[in-house]
Amino acid sequence: MSENNDQAVVPQTLDGWSVLHQIFSVDWPRWNAAPEAEKEEIVEGAAGYLEKAAGVEDGESAAFSLLGHKGDLLLLNFRKTLDELNEVELGFRRLPLYGYLSETTSYLSFLELGLYEMTVKFHNELIEAGLKPDSDEWKERWAAEMAGQRERMIGRLYMEIPEDRYLCFYPMNKRRGEEKNWYGLPIDERQMMMRDHGMVGRKYAGRVKQIITGSIGLDDWEWGVYLFAPDPHVFKELIYEMRFDEATVWYGEFGPFYSGLRIKPSELSGVLIGVAGS
Amino acid sequence: MSENNDQAVVPQTLDGWSVLHQIFSVDWPRWNAAPEAEKEEIVEGAAGYLEKAAGVEDGESAAFSLLGHKGDLLLLNFRKTLDELNEVELGFRRLPLYGYLSETTSYLSFLELGLYEMTVKFHNELIEAGLKPDSDEWKERWAAEMAGQRERMIGRLYMEIPEDRYLCFYPMNKRRGEEKNWYGLPIDERQMMMRDHGMVGRKYAGRVKQIITGSIGLDDWEWGVYLFAPDPHVFKELIYEMRFDEATVWYGEFGPFYSGLRIKPSELSGVLIGVAGS
Amino acid sequence: MSENNDQAVVPQTLDGWSVLHQIFSVDWPRWNAAPEAEKEEIVEGAAGYLEKAAGVEDGESAAFSLLGHKGDLLLLNFRKTLDELNEVELGFRRLPLYGYLSETTSYLSFLELGLYEMTVKFHNELIEAGLKPDSDEWKERWAAEMAGQRERMIGRLYMEIPEDRYLCFYPMNKRRGEEKNWYGLPIDERQMMMRDHGMVGRKYAGRVKQIITGSIGLDDWEWGVYLFAPDPHVFKELIYEMRFDEATVWYGEFGPFYSGLRIKPSELSGVLIGVAGS
Amino acid sequence: MSENNDQAVVPQTLDGWSVLHQIFSVDWPRWNAAPEAEKEEIVEGAAGYLEKAAGVEDGESAAFSLLGHKGDLLLLNFRKTLDELNEVELGFRRLPLYGYLSETTSYLSFLELGLYEMTVKFHNELIEAGLKPDSDEWKERWAAEMAGQRERMIGRLYMEIPEDRYLCFYPMNKRRGEEKNWYGLPIDERQMMMRDHGMVGRKYAGRVKQIITGSIGLDDWEWGVYLFAPDPHVFKELIYEMRFDEATVWYGEFGPFYSGLRIKPSELSGVLIGVAGS
Amino acid sequence: MSENNDQAVVPQTLDGWSVLHQIFSVDWPRWNAAPEAEKEEIVEGAAGYLEKAAGVEDGESAAFSLLGHKGDLLLLNFRKTLDELNEVELGFRRLPLYGYLSETTSYLSFLELGLYEMTVKFHNELIEAGLKPDSDEWKERWAAEMAGQRERMIGRLYMEIPEDRYLCFYPMNKRRGEEKNWYGLPIDERQMMMRDHGMVGRKYAGRVKQIITGSIGLDDWEWGVYLFAPDPHVFKELIYEMRFDEATVWYGEFGPFYSGLRIKPSELSGVLIGVAGS
Repeated sequence: MSENNDQAVVPQTLDGWSVLHQIFSVDWPRWNAAPEAEKEEIVEGAAGYLEKAAGVEDGESAAFSLLGHKGDLLLLNFRKTLDELNEVELGFRRLPLYGYLSETTSYLSFLELGLYEMTVKFHNELIEAGLKPDSDEWKERWAAEMAGQRERMIGRLYMEIPEDRYLCFYPMNKRRGEEKNWYGLPIDERQMMMRDHGMVGRKYAGRVKQIITGSIGLDDWEWGVYLFAPDPHVFKELIYEMRFDEATVWYGEFGPFYSGLRIKPSELSGVLIGVAGS
Repeated sequence: MSENNDQAVVPQTLDGWSVLHQIFSVDWPRWNAAPEAEKEEIVEGAAGYLEKAAGVEDGESAAFSLLGHKGDLLLLNFRKTLDELNEVELGFRRLPLYGYLSETTSYLSFLELGLYEMTVKFHNELIEAGLKPDSDEWKERWAAEMAGQRERMIGRLYMEIPEDRYLCFYPMNKRRGEEKNWYGLPIDERQMMMRDHGMVGRKYAGRVKQIITGSIGLDDWEWGVYLFAPDPHVFKELIYEMRFDEATVWYGEFGPFYSGLRIKPSELSGVLIGVAGS
Repeated sequence: MSENNDQAVVPQTLDGWSVLHQIFSVDWPRWNAAPEAEKEEIVEGAAGYLEKAAGVEDGESAAFSLLGHKGDLLLLNFRKTLDELNEVELGFRRLPLYGYLSETTSYLSFLELGLYEMTVKFHNELIEAGLKPDSDEWKERWAAEMAGQRERMIGRLYMEIPEDRYLCFYPMNKRRGEEKNWYGLPIDERQMMMRDHGMVGRKYAGRVKQIITGSIGLDDWEWGVYLFAPDPHVFKELIYEMRFDEATVWYGEFGPFYSGLRIKPSELSGVLIGVAGS
Repeated sequence: MSENNDQAVVPQTLDGWSVLHQIFSVDWPRWNAAPEAEKEEIVEGAAGYLEKAAGVEDGESAAFSLLGHKGDLLLLNFRKTLDELNEVELGFRRLPLYGYLSETTSYLSFLELGLYEMTVKFHNELIEAGLKPDSDEWKERWAAEMAGQRERMIGRLYMEIPEDRYLCFYPMNKRRGEEKNWYGLPIDERQMMMRDHGMVGRKYAGRVKQIITGSIGLDDWEWGVYLFAPDPHVFKELIYEMRFDEATVWYGEFGPFYSGLRIKPSELSGVLIGVAGS
Repeated sequence: MSENNDQAVVPQTLDGWSVLHQIFSVDWPRWNAAPEAEKEEIVEGAAGYLEKAAGVEDGESAAFSLLGHKGDLLLLNFRKTLDELNEVELGFRRLPLYGYLSETTSYLSFLELGLYEMTVKFHNELIEAGLKPDSDEWKERWAAEMAGQRERMIGRLYMEIPEDRYLCFYPMNKRRGEEKNWYGLPIDERQMMMRDHGMVGRKYAGRVKQIITGSIGLDDWEWGVYLFAPDPHVFKELIYEMRFDEATVWYGEFGPFYSGLRIKPSELSGVLIGVAGS
């Protein structure tokens, strides 16, 4: 990459699922005071809704029991469109269970695959082929390349929600500081840092599954990160190790962290009503 | 522009519509518990109000169903005066539906057209014509020029609310940092950066419509940006690409982002009561 | 000013009215549900209180209908003492209307006239006269000078609340940054910047009235600014132009902005109950 | 002080009273709706509690009526231990008045006397006497010196709450910035700045009384400052003048400011119920 | 340590207990209004739950009465897994007492032992032994070394909650600033600063017990610090002294501080109902 305005080269991305997670707090005083039979009926209805939401044709929903005061339930929804996401949240609000819930926070994003390597490589190819950026041929070639990428990656763009027991979610930004500013760096530097950052992640392959979503223009942070693992200690290990790669040291800014346990619709009763002995 | 005090040249702007959007949360537990017939009557009343508000002689109102916990409904009002905006909000508060709503946030601004190019060009003309800044003749010439601009742009100052399905709103500032400070730059630099920034926007013509509003002296950020599009992915694409233009890299500061789906007054029932099967 | 410790010269100020504004939100669901006759009686009582408060012997109160979610009513009180301000707020809390209000925010300050020019000029005179700072004679001379200033400015220290239709309020600080720090500048520099800042304000004479209040030691920001005008566009124009004067570029920090419409006590009914056709 | 590691010399402090102030908001709608006779009985009970709390053997409590929305009542408690502070708050929560109150904020600290001068002087003496820092003899000598200081200052460590009409409270930190960092300065520099800072305070002797409390490890800021005066304008004058001393210019960070009027237990009725004509 | 990429060497840590503390506020108005007999029964039930929770086979729970408005009760839970922590919180929410509580905040972490010294020493040994970082042998040697460390430290990883009267909790980060950035320092520098920091702590051995927990990936700060002592003044003394060690001066960032008094399950009644004479 040797153009004069390298800095402004925008790394390509592909968008997959529309993603909305919602976090709910139970009004425990009122819920605890409701008659047992009513609670059971209400839970059954909500479990049925989750069951149905989990198995829609084009998408999936999964529920988690959260640790601490940030909320009691997290509902993670993957759908094809914002319209379907809006529908799933409106449907949930109409359940009798919603008479005991409040939505304390949420996050809206698109599942995103970043293409730093491909962007730099293909950009250089076109420059070397003598094409002028943003010329008609340039645009055509990019469109074709992106269509190919999308086809190859369709399975990852519309992946299933991993079934591991533990969830970690946090939103993040790339720093836009007065001195250290990610968006003011040449794309080659950004690409190299992203590659090193990815290398750390790869060391955890098999121990943790990661879904990156992009939320620029949709929600208050630039990205939302979902981690899934059968052992929650790996979240701490991975994120601590990443604190030391250069992209994170100087440019990573993190929002609140959320920790949850995956529950099946049938386990909703355990969270809300409890079982004998607990 | 070669005056010694270039920095302090203030770019001219034109104000159009007075704009207020309000975001409401439904008290779902109480709303869900209300009798069906009552809910239908209430929704009908509110839909009627929206219908009327949408078609006032001098202005317009539009409703959106929001994604996530930031609110359920967004009501966007364009009027000629703050008095009319105050009236529309007071009228809405008096509806029976308001017994189930709370206004969680809002934004007040004037639709604004910035005139960086014209400011720099005309300022230089007057200087070259030997006029002294802020002399009587200088002021007269400016007033005449601004009146002409206003006439030519009257359609954009009082434009209609675009009818696209998706809305993105965010407020923003130009950074006033200890080192990087937009207002401390010479106007030529600011003008060039604004031109480059505008170029990125122009690449999205036809795919997204943009309404810029100014809120200095009216609300907590300096500008409010409304984007409308038939495909929400374009919001992410556009705003991500803009992250890399110089005006944004070093000087753009962003508030919370809101995402909504346009609904007609008759669709209010779908949001609040739901339809068979959803 | 050529003393070695110029920086620490403290600009003199004069305090006038004790000022408290309170912002109230109406509990619309409950208020709307109250019987019409009761609402009318309650509003009449509150209007009577405002009428009385507006015309106390030593002070004044004025009410405003606010735009947006930050509140519904703003009550601005000028009194001679904090004790009287406390009384007016306690009196208001005892009205039946208060059964439907909550006070969401407020601001406490003293109307303040800054004396940068006089401070620098008189300080230099005393130095030239061979007096030692903080000597007994020095203090006596200052006290006499300040007493004279106070007498000359008594009308502005205890001015009436302007009757214009539109109000703009915002609190502000002078930046105390690690690099750009207002309080670390020599007083000559501060004085020159304040003079330039004042020049911008003077261009708006006749179009906007301004009341500056000081709140160091009283509330969370250093100053509170009240602007009054018959046209709200002038707030935006004035504050935008001031963004470019040096005192503001590098040292102005702004809190939230509030926008309201002046109402007479008799118009309270229009805000709370509405009139035919609105 | 000429040791190589001067910076890390920790200024000695002495702790006196355990201090907790609590700020309460009245639920005015519910309180106003209670029957007069009940309110009077409740206020009488609370006044009796305050009377008793004001006169405990080892400590004192004082009440203030606050200005603005930050709260209605401030209760300031001086006790020997945290256990006694916990008891006074638990006792207050059990009063019938507490059925109408909520505690919106509070501050916990120890009354603190800083010993910058003594620390530097005595440290140097020991160094000159050839002692090694943190050797046994060094520690012994410090302990003895501190015991003497404590004895001499016992009256100030356990002083009475001043009876002046006006209260000003604010919490503060010394800046720990990336460049300007109080804790990274050599103790000599800190001592000199603290001395200059103290000089400004001394000019106000007789006009304002000051209680400094330390809250490192106890509450969210490093210090809490209580000012008492018969004229509230002196708070603004004093704190404004201090804005210009070097310790404050570069290292003073301030939290919210609270303003109140001292009330006797018997005046609680005036605040909560009011008197004829007010 | 002389590798070229020293900076990125990640200090090893060992995880012990899963730790969750929850902070609850009592709804005093409603609680005070409940019949005495009911309150006693409710408290007895909650005390029984705490008693049981305090003595689970694999873990422990302890209760504290908090000072000030941040909460009334703090419940500190040590368990083997997040699942057991989730169970203890769900169990507590089902108690009748929970009809009067709200959880205002919480903190989730793993008890953590940092191994800076061992990391640097062992890393250097392997380098000197000619091993290549992240080679298979390298990884094997690390795994064996860590297993040994874990065995030796098992008692500290699963220590009991100290029984001292006073608790201090605060969360903290290492600064990730644009200039001062902990994660951008070479590991040798970090190790030396951590050693000096530890030296200060060691001076307080016997006067204060400290439990460090790591919360990267689990909660909003990087670490949570629990201090226990029979005299609360030692918290202030220790934390103030640490303000001056280099790791803290430039890199320590602190969240809110919480102060509490340890109570036995049988003392819950004293907090919630009170005893004769208090």
